[in-house]
Amino acid sequence: MITLTVLYGTPDDVEKFDEYYDGTHIPLARAVPGLEDAKVTRFLPGPDGSAPEFHLMAQLFFADAEAMGAAMSTDEGRALAADGANLGITPTMLVGSTE
Amino acid sequence: MITLTVLYGTPDDVEKFDEYYDGTHIPLARAVPGLEDAKVTRFLPGPDGSAPEFHLMAQLFFADAEAMGAAMSTDEGRALAADGANLGITPTMLVGSTE
Repeated sequence: MITLTVLYGTPDDVEKFDEYYDGTHIPLARAVPGLEDAKVTRFLPGPDGSAPEFHLMAQLFFADAEAMGAAMSTDEGRALAADGANLGITPTMLVGSTE
Repeated sequence: MITLTVLYGTPDDVEKFDEYYDGTHIPLARAVPGLEDAKVTRFLPGPDGSAPEFHLMAQLFFADAEAMGAAMSTDEGRALAADGANLGITPTMLVGSTE
């Protein structure tokens, strides 16, 4: 599987970020044609209560690189990418191969 | 699911790291009792050929936080944690909840 991994740092307003992410951004992701699976990981504070280095990670799974490229070029893929700006954080985006 | 996410930066000797990771570290991880699933993602260079921010990500999945704590306290869990030093990189480790 080819995965698009998106790592978000801690937003200034966590509650607002989470609400928008869950209510708007995830539904846009799930609507992308060719998406095989999507996983969202919410990171917890460290054992000492410190904020984690990242707040949230999304993983979008595609059959292969060609499928990912095609999916992100659809209207739904473009809408998802454009909506990223509404989250107010520039995430770290990584393409990888997952086994 | 509770996940332990381990993010490794790019090692000085990628080939040596990958060989040790695949040959020794992954088998130690898979031997941990209570591990529900393990996924390894290898990140690819950016579209401009630049090195990705992280080289590799491991995700270890457990039923819940209690199961993760119990698993990492077993002999196999301790052996896995101890073997991390042989990889020559201090990774970013994050505990999270994955859906």
